[in-house]
Amino acid sequence: MGHVITLPGIFMCGAGINRKKIKIKGEAVSPLNLIIKKRDGRELMPDEIERIVSGFNRGLIPDYQMTAFLMAVYYRGLTPGELTAYTKALVASGRTLNWNYLSGMVADKHSSGGVGDKTTLVVAPLMAASGIYMPKMSGRGLGFTGGTIDKLESIPGFNTELSLSKMQSQVERIGLAVVSQTAELTPADGRIYALRDVTATVDSIPLIAGSIMSKKIAGGASCIVLDVKVGSGAFMRSLTDAAALAETMVSLGQAFGRRVKALITDMDQPLGRAIGNSLEIEEAVSTLQGEGPDDLKELALALGTHLLCDAENNDDAEAARSRLRHLLDSGDAYEKFLQMVEAQGGDPRSLEKGLEPARFQREIRAGQMGYLQKFDALHIGRAAALLGSGRQRKGDTPDRSAGIYLHAQSGDKVEEGMPLMTLYTDREERIAAALEEVHRAVRIATDPVPPRPLIHDTVS
Amino acid sequence: MGHVITLPGIFMCGAGINRKKIKIKGEAVSPLNLIIKKRDGRELMPDEIERIVSGFNRGLIPDYQMTAFLMAVYYRGLTPGELTAYTKALVASGRTLNWNYLSGMVADKHSSGGVGDKTTLVVAPLMAASGIYMPKMSGRGLGFTGGTIDKLESIPGFNTELSLSKMQSQVERIGLAVVSQTAELTPADGRIYALRDVTATVDSIPLIAGSIMSKKIAGGASCIVLDVKVGSGAFMRSLTDAAALAETMVSLGQAFGRRVKALITDMDQPLGRAIGNSLEIEEAVSTLQGEGPDDLKELALALGTHLLCDAENNDDAEAARSRLRHLLDSGDAYEKFLQMVEAQGGDPRSLEKGLEPARFQREIRAGQMGYLQKFDALHIGRAAALLGSGRQRKGDTPDRSAGIYLHAQSGDKVEEGMPLMTLYTDREERIAAALEEVHRAVRIATDPVPPRPLIHDTVS
Repeated sequence: MGHVITLPGIFMCGAGINRKKIKIKGEAVSPLNLIIKKRDGRELMPDEIERIVSGFNRGLIPDYQMTAFLMAVYYRGLTPGELTAYTKALVASGRTLNWNYLSGMVADKHSSGGVGDKTTLVVAPLMAASGIYMPKMSGRGLGFTGGTIDKLESIPGFNTELSLSKMQSQVERIGLAVVSQTAELTPADGRIYALRDVTATVDSIPLIAGSIMSKKIAGGASCIVLDVKVGSGAFMRSLTDAAALAETMVSLGQAFGRRVKALITDMDQPLGRAIGNSLEIEEAVSTLQGEGPDDLKELALALGTHLLCDAENNDDAEAARSRLRHLLDSGDAYEKFLQMVEAQGGDPRSLEKGLEPARFQREIRAGQMGYLQKFDALHIGRAAALLGSGRQRKGDTPDRSAGIYLHAQSGDKVEEGMPLMTLYTDREERIAAALEEVHRAVRIATDPVPPRPLIHDTVS
Repeated sequence: MGHVITLPGIFMCGAGINRKKIKIKGEAVSPLNLIIKKRDGRELMPDEIERIVSGFNRGLIPDYQMTAFLMAVYYRGLTPGELTAYTKALVASGRTLNWNYLSGMVADKHSSGGVGDKTTLVVAPLMAASGIYMPKMSGRGLGFTGGTIDKLESIPGFNTELSLSKMQSQVERIGLAVVSQTAELTPADGRIYALRDVTATVDSIPLIAGSIMSKKIAGGASCIVLDVKVGSGAFMRSLTDAAALAETMVSLGQAFGRRVKALITDMDQPLGRAIGNSLEIEEAVSTLQGEGPDDLKELALALGTHLLCDAENNDDAEAARSRLRHLLDSGDAYEKFLQMVEAQGGDPRSLEKGLEPARFQREIRAGQMGYLQKFDALHIGRAAALLGSGRQRKGDTPDRSAGIYLHAQSGDKVEEGMPLMTLYTDREERIAAALEEVHRAVRIATDPVPPRPLIHDTVS
């Protein structure tokens, strides 16, 4: 039966009440509570972020909680501390590369992607020719055209699926390798990206920055240059967003002790004149031989100069740029490219005699005179994709030779009947659909057009 | 080989360009695009909302997309049009009840839940006694104490798991039934709630409103009264949130053509004096016999008056209230309760001789004099849960007789040594933990305390 407890005089309002916390459900560390914390905009501790990423990666946090968390991050962002912890957890989910045994500096480059962007194919051999190691992992494109890997695979025999140990020994021997990303590095990033892709959580600056930089950090380079594209053909449409992404990635890389710089560059029009896998290889080859379009050469030199200065801890940009220009003109950079092609199983002679052309070509001419304001990157990219240069969905294989070659560039005076571009495809019926996009791509103005800036800003 | 296409003169900037849309990926109706639309705060069309709910319910939209969508709704809310479409889709996911064949009006009641809230046990028989049909589906509580269903199950033999057809014939015969919610009604709501519960998307006013009102709409009542609790022991902690929820639910129900009113009522302290399943049954019985605590009786009469006026399309609230008060005093309401107990297999005699008491009781006395400001609902609720009256997790069975009986109410003058409450439990070792919460619950002030309002507002 009951008995009486007389409570001591601690009932007066608020005075001296025991405030020791009780965990009724022991849920202080549950995933739900971490989602609530992020949802409400409170900062997560590094070990809490780590618990989410590694818990998800090990299957302890289900997809449906992860996507709710990612949507909360979409709205709330990540603080610098959270982002560093998030990136560290992505890196810790897989292998990391260490290049300390090499005699020289190791550099890496990333581009946020755009139409006609074959810069890696120029910069990697250029850096190798200058004595800087360049082990480069690249993706396949799901955008308008293939990624760097797809472009290289348009060289007969070229193997991009190297094991990490084969890549390492090739880098040691010839200074560079360009290989396909492996799930051995940052596997959690791959799993998270697959969810972001179908839940509208791709467009988040901290999540993009963490994804990109985790791969760079795991790749082990000391010096990293980032090319953040802005414009109609880029992921970032506004200069403000591009600058925010660039600054976030630079700070993040620096938090990991890496030397990082970012350029913000134009993607309102395609880079260079060639769009499409083998067409871009040919343009990269010509640029590596000291020719090629001015914008591509300028961007490759600008990115390379940053890497060279950072790698050598030297701020004489003018001297660095002139060394690099000489490595293009002398053929040394192209020689490195040929060494890589050979090392990775490709046929260097195929480059000399020219890659196989597309079965069908259509030349597009101007119907009227004026000044070429631009070829809009978005519509050129879509047209190239319709011709077969890209993937409509994961698992597709892009056509090697499909694409577009531009005969004019921004600012050119255009006469009626002048060739504007040539479309390339292996399937003639694709031309009709591409033409709709081509119509939208071409902007001809009645008055002369001022030159368009290639490099908007540098973040360091 | 190639041939030349000369484009007509439509290249001049922006003039006459064909703007017909191409669906490159045919994704205009993909779940991803619907998530993007909501994420960006654009209004979804009714058929888009319908597609999300029914697609999820049929397994075509995976959990991880649904939770991203729900988190976007958490931040962006739902417009009235979206909320109506969402609720309609929940209703359409299962069976709906139709009471048109009955001779009288059908009413329903919902409470957002609180500590000591046994109002349904009074209101349902009261309405039935007044000639209004009251088929009531209730939940089991996952909160501090059991839900209405758990309380009824503390009556030996009482069966809450009636089939819909058995419930319908009982309502037809005696005017009321209180049964457990069935997954035959609004199954999509159950599936969505299970995800919300673990992804921090419960606390969303439109999602709460849609969930509650879909069950009321599917239940088929013409007149609905809502009791939205506000205070430390309620889901809604602020008056602003409670008012927003009440207004949202009232408008939503009206959009479905129902007569709906909401009261916003106090849950800073428990309702009545009894907390715990069988203790609350006893208090409801005494209230049905015209006795019982003033606050419970007042709330039951206020809710019942709204239902009676709405059902009879009559705005003479004073007359309605006096009829209801008479039905309590005359024993007619209690007679309906006994009919229901008997119809659902319970033993009416067990109520007369009193339900089985808990094995252990502890009386808590004041250690000092003063005025009782309140017993805080949150801490009283937690203490009752620790004594065994609630569920710690799904699937638990609450103890029938565990709980707390309050010997004082807000405003009472308290003398040192005066009994404040009695704790009831079947497991003596639970008392120690409960005491910590009891300490926090009691607020005694040195000065007299003004009466606390029971009903903050009425929304219609």
